[in-house]
Amino acid sequence: MQEIKPIPGCGLVKSLRWEEGELILLDQTRLPNEVVEERQDSPEQVWEAIKLLKVRGAPAIGIAGAYGLLVGLKPHRAAPVAEFLAQARTLADYLNSSRPTAVNLSWGLKRMVAFAQARAGAVATAAELYAELTAEAIRIHEEDKAICRAIGEHGKGLIAEGSGVLTHCNAGALATSELGTATAPMYLSHAEGKRFRVYSDETRPLLQGARLTSWELQQSGLDVTLICDNMAAFIMSKGLVQLCVVGCDRVAANGDTANKIGTMGVAILARHFGIPFYVACPSSTVDLSTATGADIVIEEREAEEVTSFGARRTGPEGIQVRNPAFDVTPHPLIAGFITEKGIIRPDFQANLAQAFGH
Amino acid sequence: MQEIKPIPGCGLVKSLRWEEGELILLDQTRLPNEVVEERQDSPEQVWEAIKLLKVRGAPAIGIAGAYGLLVGLKPHRAAPVAEFLAQARTLADYLNSSRPTAVNLSWGLKRMVAFAQARAGAVATAAELYAELTAEAIRIHEEDKAICRAIGEHGKGLIAEGSGVLTHCNAGALATSELGTATAPMYLSHAEGKRFRVYSDETRPLLQGARLTSWELQQSGLDVTLICDNMAAFIMSKGLVQLCVVGCDRVAANGDTANKIGTMGVAILARHFGIPFYVACPSSTVDLSTATGADIVIEEREAEEVTSFGARRTGPEGIQVRNPAFDVTPHPLIAGFITEKGIIRPDFQANLAQAFGH
Repeated sequence: MQEIKPIPGCGLVKSLRWEEGELILLDQTRLPNEVVEERQDSPEQVWEAIKLLKVRGAPAIGIAGAYGLLVGLKPHRAAPVAEFLAQARTLADYLNSSRPTAVNLSWGLKRMVAFAQARAGAVATAAELYAELTAEAIRIHEEDKAICRAIGEHGKGLIAEGSGVLTHCNAGALATSELGTATAPMYLSHAEGKRFRVYSDETRPLLQGARLTSWELQQSGLDVTLICDNMAAFIMSKGLVQLCVVGCDRVAANGDTANKIGTMGVAILARHFGIPFYVACPSSTVDLSTATGADIVIEEREAEEVTSFGARRTGPEGIQVRNPAFDVTPHPLIAGFITEKGIIRPDFQANLAQAFGH
Repeated sequence: MQEIKPIPGCGLVKSLRWEEGELILLDQTRLPNEVVEERQDSPEQVWEAIKLLKVRGAPAIGIAGAYGLLVGLKPHRAAPVAEFLAQARTLADYLNSSRPTAVNLSWGLKRMVAFAQARAGAVATAAELYAELTAEAIRIHEEDKAICRAIGEHGKGLIAEGSGVLTHCNAGALATSELGTATAPMYLSHAEGKRFRVYSDETRPLLQGARLTSWELQQSGLDVTLICDNMAAFIMSKGLVQLCVVGCDRVAANGDTANKIGTMGVAILARHFGIPFYVACPSSTVDLSTATGADIVIEEREAEEVTSFGARRTGPEGIQVRNPAFDVTPHPLIAGFITEKGIIRPDFQANLAQAFGH
């Protein structure tokens, strides 16, 4: 595939870069207070960066895993091909253990190992295989850029001149590459000179909206306003929002959509105020084997995320807490899915199967 | 009026106490990490306590103002009555300047000064007048307890055995006296042995739900679970909430209700899930001179409340922020007002006027 050319003023924030054979990661845990890029010199460093969420977001970790494998293989370029291949398998298992439940990480690593196996017989040296693997990792990266770009192209028409767009959590450049998913229509509209305002929910408990989305849109010069999650209804009631766009973690066959906790609330408010609610959705998150949202298990995370903030305790000692990481937005609340293949509208059951079924 | 007798297991948390001629305030800024009561030795100390929100909540500041006046007048008990009266006026103006927009503070101080003026001709000494003023301040306090008690009695039937109740912000004992307003039906139901679970929204940006409501309910042994504001829809979708009860800052003649930011969102979610949404409402917050919610001006507070948390910055430098302190819940979303005179149901325009008009 062709290299994706940058669009001026778009995708200025990069979660990761591959530069002169080196992987550079932006440490997202230090945002928005410090912008620190770290060159990855060892697989252990990459493992830790994924584990500690320095790089996060399903597509971004998939890409980081692929490049991370190269970081680990680099010292073995002079080894016999068979040994190099064994090393690739070991390293892939090791890197995958940094976030074992992240589907994209395992997907990216498996693709790299499968590619290495397929090409091992056709190369003369490990150095040659390493070069081919480098090209494959870059392809994974470029493919993600292309998907985000296509989502942006299909979705940008939903943003009207002078309108307001509300988003929740971070489905942006920091979670993917270049344009993000939910943010891609915003970046492209901005690049075309459209004027509009983005409202970014702060997204408790981990504040991805405050720390990440607000920051990355601000970096690219978009008009972005940060609000607390519970201010969305007020902002909508004032006629300031004409469109909601969010990302997704998994979309069931009927269109029910798991995404960051709070997403369903935004969808219900949008319905109340007559605002269309769209989900930006790369085809990789559509899971036709999951019939409905009822089949999606919601992870509950530690109470401390809710009762503390940094070192400061905000809830009483011993208080009971619920901390669901995701919720499932029922499909009737969703106007459409903005995918790389176009906007999928109801009937979702039929139309998702048609677009993404085998 | 008679002194209100405590109910075992109810109102264990006291925002303020008048004990042996001394005013004791609970420093709410240190909750829930530290429980510190401070004896007030000077009007300057009371002024600062109100200013710094060590005591907050409209009814509680009204009571604190009345007692605070006594703290300031105590050294003047040997003065001539006219001088004592002049001192009362000066002190009332001074204390009122600690939070000039707090209606209840000015109301409590005015009532005390008017009482002093009315009684000045009938007493022989300032000490006698001071004693009468003490009785008046205690009456203000007891009246508030009685109002909260009556709200609890009228509202407790709304809480069913085995049900879930969701509340937002703090309209509890810490904001008033003894039972609170929104919490009064909960405290009385609990005292009667009913089993139910309270979900307490943390209430960004100032976290009154996390810091105050969760804590005070926990102190009295209620079954309380803390959630982030954006988890309310998830909790409701799981069938865990059968009733929402919140407090209010001002109720317009048509029933539109100004309350802490986020309240309207809860009301919309409750409507979506078919859950009744009630407002606990002492008659003092009904403002028949305000026709509708459109006439209520919403205060916007400093951006730092949204972009920082304690000393830690959570939003990017220079980010645009909206920080409305309140929102207005349209009256059609409200099932009823739980007042000291009973539950007021629609038609609110007619029924609020009938209950609270002149």
